[in-house]
Amino acid sequence: MAPNPATLWGETLVEELTAGGLEAVCIAPGSRSTPLTVAFAEHPDVTVYSHLDERSAAYFALGRGRRTGEPTAVVCTSGTAAANFHPAVIEASQARVPLLLLTADRPHELRDSGANQTIDQVKLYGDAVRWYAELPDPAADERKARMLRTTAARALTKTTGTPAGPVHLNCPFRKPLEPTTVPGSVPDSFSETLAGAGRDGPFVRSSPGTVLADPGDVSIVASALEDASRPLLVAGPADPNHITGSGSNSAPHAGSAEATLGQRVVDLASRLGAAVFADPLSGVRFGPHLRADDGQAADGTARAPLVCGGYDSYAGSEQLPAPDVVLRIGASPTSKVLRHALRDADCRQFVVDPAGDWREATFTATDLVVADPDSLLESLLEAVDQTAASSDDGWLEAISTAESRYWDHVDTACTTEAIAKQPFEGAVLASVLECTPDPATVFVSNSMPIRDADRFGRPRAAELTVLGNRGASGIDGIVSTALGAGSATTEDEPLVLVTGDLALYHDSNGLLALERCGVDATIVVLDNDGGGIFHLLPIESFDPPFTEQFKTPHGLEFEPFAECYGFAYERVAPRGFESAYEHALETAGTHLICVDFDAESSHRQRETLEAAFHRTLESLSL
Amino acid sequence: MAPNPATLWGETLVEELTAGGLEAVCIAPGSRSTPLTVAFAEHPDVTVYSHLDERSAAYFALGRGRRTGEPTAVVCTSGTAAANFHPAVIEASQARVPLLLLTADRPHELRDSGANQTIDQVKLYGDAVRWYAELPDPAADERKARMLRTTAARALTKTTGTPAGPVHLNCPFRKPLEPTTVPGSVPDSFSETLAGAGRDGPFVRSSPGTVLADPGDVSIVASALEDASRPLLVAGPADPNHITGSGSNSAPHAGSAEATLGQRVVDLASRLGAAVFADPLSGVRFGPHLRADDGQAADGTARAPLVCGGYDSYAGSEQLPAPDVVLRIGASPTSKVLRHALRDADCRQFVVDPAGDWREATFTATDLVVADPDSLLESLLEAVDQTAASSDDGWLEAISTAESRYWDHVDTACTTEAIAKQPFEGAVLASVLECTPDPATVFVSNSMPIRDADRFGRPRAAELTVLGNRGASGIDGIVSTALGAGSATTEDEPLVLVTGDLALYHDSNGLLALERCGVDATIVVLDNDGGGIFHLLPIESFDPPFTEQFKTPHGLEFEPFAECYGFAYERVAPRGFESAYEHALETAGTHLICVDFDAESSHRQRETLEAAFHRTLESLSL
Repeated sequence: MAPNPATLWGETLVEELTAGGLEAVCIAPGSRSTPLTVAFAEHPDVTVYSHLDERSAAYFALGRGRRTGEPTAVVCTSGTAAANFHPAVIEASQARVPLLLLTADRPHELRDSGANQTIDQVKLYGDAVRWYAELPDPAADERKARMLRTTAARALTKTTGTPAGPVHLNCPFRKPLEPTTVPGSVPDSFSETLAGAGRDGPFVRSSPGTVLADPGDVSIVASALEDASRPLLVAGPADPNHITGSGSNSAPHAGSAEATLGQRVVDLASRLGAAVFADPLSGVRFGPHLRADDGQAADGTARAPLVCGGYDSYAGSEQLPAPDVVLRIGASPTSKVLRHALRDADCRQFVVDPAGDWREATFTATDLVVADPDSLLESLLEAVDQTAASSDDGWLEAISTAESRYWDHVDTACTTEAIAKQPFEGAVLASVLECTPDPATVFVSNSMPIRDADRFGRPRAAELTVLGNRGASGIDGIVSTALGAGSATTEDEPLVLVTGDLALYHDSNGLLALERCGVDATIVVLDNDGGGIFHLLPIESFDPPFTEQFKTPHGLEFEPFAECYGFAYERVAPRGFESAYEHALETAGTHLICVDFDAESSHRQRETLEAAFHRTLESLSL
Repeated sequence: MAPNPATLWGETLVEELTAGGLEAVCIAPGSRSTPLTVAFAEHPDVTVYSHLDERSAAYFALGRGRRTGEPTAVVCTSGTAAANFHPAVIEASQARVPLLLLTADRPHELRDSGANQTIDQVKLYGDAVRWYAELPDPAADERKARMLRTTAARALTKTTGTPAGPVHLNCPFRKPLEPTTVPGSVPDSFSETLAGAGRDGPFVRSSPGTVLADPGDVSIVASALEDASRPLLVAGPADPNHITGSGSNSAPHAGSAEATLGQRVVDLASRLGAAVFADPLSGVRFGPHLRADDGQAADGTARAPLVCGGYDSYAGSEQLPAPDVVLRIGASPTSKVLRHALRDADCRQFVVDPAGDWREATFTATDLVVADPDSLLESLLEAVDQTAASSDDGWLEAISTAESRYWDHVDTACTTEAIAKQPFEGAVLASVLECTPDPATVFVSNSMPIRDADRFGRPRAAELTVLGNRGASGIDGIVSTALGAGSATTEDEPLVLVTGDLALYHDSNGLLALERCGVDATIVVLDNDGGGIFHLLPIESFDPPFTEQFKTPHGLEFEPFAECYGFAYERVAPRGFESAYEHALETAGTHLICVDFDAESSHRQRETLEAAFHRTLESLSL
């Protein structure tokens, strides 16, 4: 039996969490959290990642949850340590990533009394968690212990519920915190009770359920799509349980083992003659479902699916017909052009969301379909009668032509010669998403990299799991999120992180996980010495304060980080990127490739490329 | 007139804040915060510090507020940026440091709609702020604009109220965010209104007031102290408006321009024949009030005051008489030995707190006196009749002997020869607090450094402003807090930071402020490769998991940071510290001195030293 109540609580909670399927925990050192830390460290079925900065720890756990769709726990001591989790908690909430926060706390009587490292941790993360619960004061008490075991199951289930997200268990402990024997505090007889012994497997079995659309809604959507002349499927950033990929833990969503979301989107589009605009984070733009022969339905009659990635340059264009029915799954797309085109399309738009949230900030969608997208697509594939689909061939041809011409332009701008002459950041994203061997996990930072991935990442039939933090779209925690994702992949699946210099600096502490957590990565830094994205904004023409307060050049050299955190470093000119990248991928260990760019000239090249494509578009008769 | 409503809002708010006395702002780059950033950057009366990591920015602002007692503002864009402020907000709340949080937000209609970088910022920091308010939607509307101006005054006043602390203004802005002209959006005539033009000086004048004790309470305290045989004054960590020092902004608290808190404590102790146990962060242990001649009252009859710093080794000792009346000011003392001695003293204990908070976690104090400590001391100095004071000379003599013998032991342990033979971390704190020329600001990190400062920092008649983050006592944000404090000192007042290696790593991003914010510092790193404090705890004897999960050796070299962030670096053995330190103080620019220690042997030496002193104490007849 446990030597004291705190140890009993730590062991019992960890026992239930692992029995419930928890596989990994990130722990930051601290004293008050000792019962949790000891219990996790001693449990054979859980992988412990030790972190020294709680902010990075939480983002690492977030990244792991993002990659696996399963909760990762994160443990900290009492005090501001817990507040350092807050940014990752918000990202987890908005991106629907399972995350289990275990914050140690002082016992109730020490709160608000001037006791050291004691803050108000009650509901610390406000509405950003799916559930907040406080563990009972540790004691060998049967009902309390059953409540503790039950709470573990409830917490895990809520992290993967609808929507998935963070759960916060606040865990007060009193001394002794270490496994020191306190005679009589936990009687031997306690182990003979149900509360003390638990059950074989988890004390409570639970799974989160799936939200299925009302049958009436399925019929309505199916009919509308069948009747559409120009049906468009828009796949926004996917919730983690819908990502495509081949990581060790990337089991498909419950009930959908036979196909990925991408496969279902492609099948439906094929059956309808619909175009698909697929966000790079949708799980649809990249994947084996794009292999040429996969585009054919079993009966051989279906049209090949058209999964597009160039829409940021042509959606809403006057040269192209507008969609007349839109089905949106996932979060709001990264592309502002696409969002505005959808706003202006003046057509029926179905927004599919399993949580009944409204992730469409232009407020022009007409129908909210509350349903798990995987299940809805499955239902639609059953309900849609291909022979009844009335889409206009011209619609697909026009989009197809625009898409194909778009990539011709990108190809031309991204040849070695073109890059040598006119380097721009987009070429790196084009190259990474084109050249990375599959399977691989590619984590793309916010600000410009994700926008460039959206514009320059050509759809590809490769097992690329492309991830980002698009819940709140911050540039914080990027390194840790990527490495956390990388911690969940198999050995033959490399992790690539593409980030700007500011995001790298912001979470430079996260680099410590390379060694401490045994993750290897190829880190590509688009170094334009500051906030390149501000060149996109009107503030660019107000200088001062543009340079000092927005662009914020910092002059940081990242080579010293290589020495600090133990990785290979190389700084290259844009034209040298591809060979450096290939070399890095072929060589063991972590490599950071810093590619020098001028943000302004990169942005001008994006504009030039877009203008040239628009001229091409105008010259076509679509 | 402002070119658009967002610009109008930014300009108006900044105008009122600066008119109300705001002198500095920390700004992290972002787009949504553009109206605030532009207005601050263009205002001639405010110093702008640009930061790239919001967590560090908030701690820098906290440090400045800690040093000055005046609010510093901090600005961020919408999204997780704001959550990165949370650790510093909690520290500011608990340490009562004025801090003004200005978080840009999306307009109301974009919330919870999937809009980019949009999170729920309403009451983001929960109960950790003194006031939360949301600015009205920008518009050239008279009542709204008057509300905005009034809100600025209210916010500033609440940051310095009782208790002082953080205030959060959430600031929604809609496009255009830049000073782009939107014809008609702000009519010229608006400038002729009271709302548009404001008033000369601040729109609303306000000051926070001071909480004075009820006269009856003053009499009760005065009588109890007069009647005491063994009166003890305990000065815990001071709220920022009570710190001693000579920084450019360290104006004494309103109404107390003639004397510092330290002077008043010394005067009262002298008049009563009381001993003073002064925490290193109390503003009482160091200061000109300890000069020998200052111990004498004007009439020459007073006994010299006894300000003690060695109590951690003798408070509660059976060899010494226990106090019979205790007056406590400030927060709960750093010394656990002292806190336990007070718990066990079984005597009348007055806890003085201006906010009526209870900062005494043993729950043995008998009286809560709700009063500003400065004002209460002033009242007590008027009320206490020196001739009526009945303190026992033996009491003071016993404490005095113990104190004096204690420092003999410390001196012996800290000679160059002793350190060469048996190095320990405490010697560095002893040395820093002994040798740093005055005036200086010395920031001491949490975990072991503050405990060592408490044990080994001998009371000294020098203008040392010794600061720490003892609100929540985290090891996060230490570098930034120190540099923020340093930003508020005069040129001839050096900034010294003493920190462990974990805290340095945790806020390594804060080092960027050295160059960006133009602060020089002498940074002393007690490098014991991990969490040395855990050697103090019972978990030490459980290994595993002690080393991997608690001690967490990381092997980080800090020399590369010197290259990254531009400062001189030196790694020295303990015996080489003093000369390296003196050299650093004499040389311009920032120096980081890394002193190698073994945490365990440091701790054993602390124990040895204490045991030797206890033997001495036992041998004395006190």
